[in-house]
Amino acid sequence: MDRHVFFGGKGGVGKTTVSATYAYKCAESGLETLVVSTDPAHSLSDLFDQSFADEPRSVADVEGLSAMEIDPEEEVSRHLTDVKRKLSDQVSAAMVNEVDRQIEMAHGTPGAYEAALFDRFVEVMRENDGYDRIVFDTSPTGGTLRLLSLPDYLEGWIDRLMAKRRQSIDLYERAALGDREPRRVLEGDPVLAHLQERKEFFEYAGETLREEASFFLVFNPDSLSIRETGRAIDRLAEQDLQVRGLVANRLTPSPDPDEEGRGARYLRARVETERERLETARTELEPPVVAEIESRVEEIRIDRLDEVAEDLAIEVSTEA
Amino acid sequence: MDRHVFFGGKGGVGKTTVSATYAYKCAESGLETLVVSTDPAHSLSDLFDQSFADEPRSVADVEGLSAMEIDPEEEVSRHLTDVKRKLSDQVSAAMVNEVDRQIEMAHGTPGAYEAALFDRFVEVMRENDGYDRIVFDTSPTGGTLRLLSLPDYLEGWIDRLMAKRRQSIDLYERAALGDREPRRVLEGDPVLAHLQERKEFFEYAGETLREEASFFLVFNPDSLSIRETGRAIDRLAEQDLQVRGLVANRLTPSPDPDEEGRGARYLRARVETERERLETARTELEPPVVAEIESRVEEIRIDRLDEVAEDLAIEVSTEA
Repeated sequence: MDRHVFFGGKGGVGKTTVSATYAYKCAESGLETLVVSTDPAHSLSDLFDQSFADEPRSVADVEGLSAMEIDPEEEVSRHLTDVKRKLSDQVSAAMVNEVDRQIEMAHGTPGAYEAALFDRFVEVMRENDGYDRIVFDTSPTGGTLRLLSLPDYLEGWIDRLMAKRRQSIDLYERAALGDREPRRVLEGDPVLAHLQERKEFFEYAGETLREEASFFLVFNPDSLSIRETGRAIDRLAEQDLQVRGLVANRLTPSPDPDEEGRGARYLRARVETERERLETARTELEPPVVAEIESRVEEIRIDRLDEVAEDLAIEVSTEA
Repeated sequence: MDRHVFFGGKGGVGKTTVSATYAYKCAESGLETLVVSTDPAHSLSDLFDQSFADEPRSVADVEGLSAMEIDPEEEVSRHLTDVKRKLSDQVSAAMVNEVDRQIEMAHGTPGAYEAALFDRFVEVMRENDGYDRIVFDTSPTGGTLRLLSLPDYLEGWIDRLMAKRRQSIDLYERAALGDREPRRVLEGDPVLAHLQERKEFFEYAGETLREEASFFLVFNPDSLSIRETGRAIDRLAEQDLQVRGLVANRLTPSPDPDEEGRGARYLRARVETERERLETARTELEPPVVAEIESRVEEIRIDRLDEVAEDLAIEVSTEA
């Protein structure tokens, strides 16, 4: 299995529980493991009955397991402040307010949230090389995945900007000739340096996700969830990212065989419908269904992770 | 009730069924009604056992009811082609390819999908004034809602561009003096005309949504869905859009009172948990829970709409 493991899927399918269970299994097998949650409801904290922050913290009762929680809202504001600061160094004082206004507006548009989160993921992957395994309770989605194509776009853009910039610096210096000003080195140009940095950042992201990451998708046994899983598989494939397996979560439990009545009829019909849907998923989707987890009424806590872990038949070993 | 009625909520909560049921009730009460679906799974077609297209079509068995289905993917490509065409008229031939590339990239970014859909919604509201009521099976969300603030932003932008444009046209004409070229009228400037048009478009959208639209949010009795409903209420409020009511959908049915066994225990525990969550929703969220709809195992079709309509206690009358 790869060092980075992502459990994707729509909100509410149970990604955090599945990720925590998998991370727990890894730690129990002796791997130094970090589980990273982006669930704004702090369900990871609930599960382990311990509060986590934006940096890795050891899970009290599980040897070899650390956890961290990224707050996406906070990530967006942090990103915003960061971009503002970087740009304000580069534009005139008169422009700062206008630039701030434009940036704030861009951050209000759809997608800013996802983009900021993606940045943070890549940072986490890059900074935490002390772990044998890093488990994420979400995976980059649709639009964000396209950011992986950015290096190709940026490449041409940077080249052309470089040429223009070189030209304008040349002209500038010719005009200032004899002024004894030290020659401004092209390499020190802050705008180009930033573009270059972003290009390398996304290059790293693409390489790491393609070569050192495994993707699993969690779904529930309803048609919408299965259809969306199919779409997510396609989107990942567009960026050369393969889904290793699917996790069916929240399956309705069967009533006792001799049970009769309105409730039993409802459950049997439901179980039957879900069976059919699972069959559809197996037939129509390429990655194998690697685990089936039944719905539990009570919330899953650390003392019941062993029980859920039994249902989660995903390999843990470091061999791919 | 307002002319435009939106049923928002996360994917999978059952918005299409609720919208169709409500539209059916409106039509049954004698209102000329149009129901607009954006569900890519064509669940509206399934429900009425009839295929719909991107323009209103009468529903065969319901007097006074029409339906249309917007395909969001198609909407995005249409939007893309449209923007390309508009811009290619305005830039030199040499620039066309580069512009196309940039536009395609922008359309690949997160948010393009929502933005294109929002445009289409506004068009539908504007074009179909022959209906007493238009029912949408989704509502503008987070990022898209901020587009309603665009007119304010565009206002200042357009003014400043106007001034610059006036200046450059002046200079241009002074340079070409004596050339007998007809004076280029500022009002005919295609870029400014387009910006002006967009500004008016979003002004219309904001006014119509604020003054002639009602918003309902559909949710399921789980914590995530309730939390997201709270967030959706806030986002709508940020744009001065009030949510009139909440629809609790997919409530688990109770077993028979004398039923015993694993299934009955599971269902009773579940019903109890959902009761508590609904109580939370009633306490913590401001808009009233106006309807509670039980989960049904079989798919809801047109012949069972009367049954669901009984559970959907939302007023139909034209009085606000």
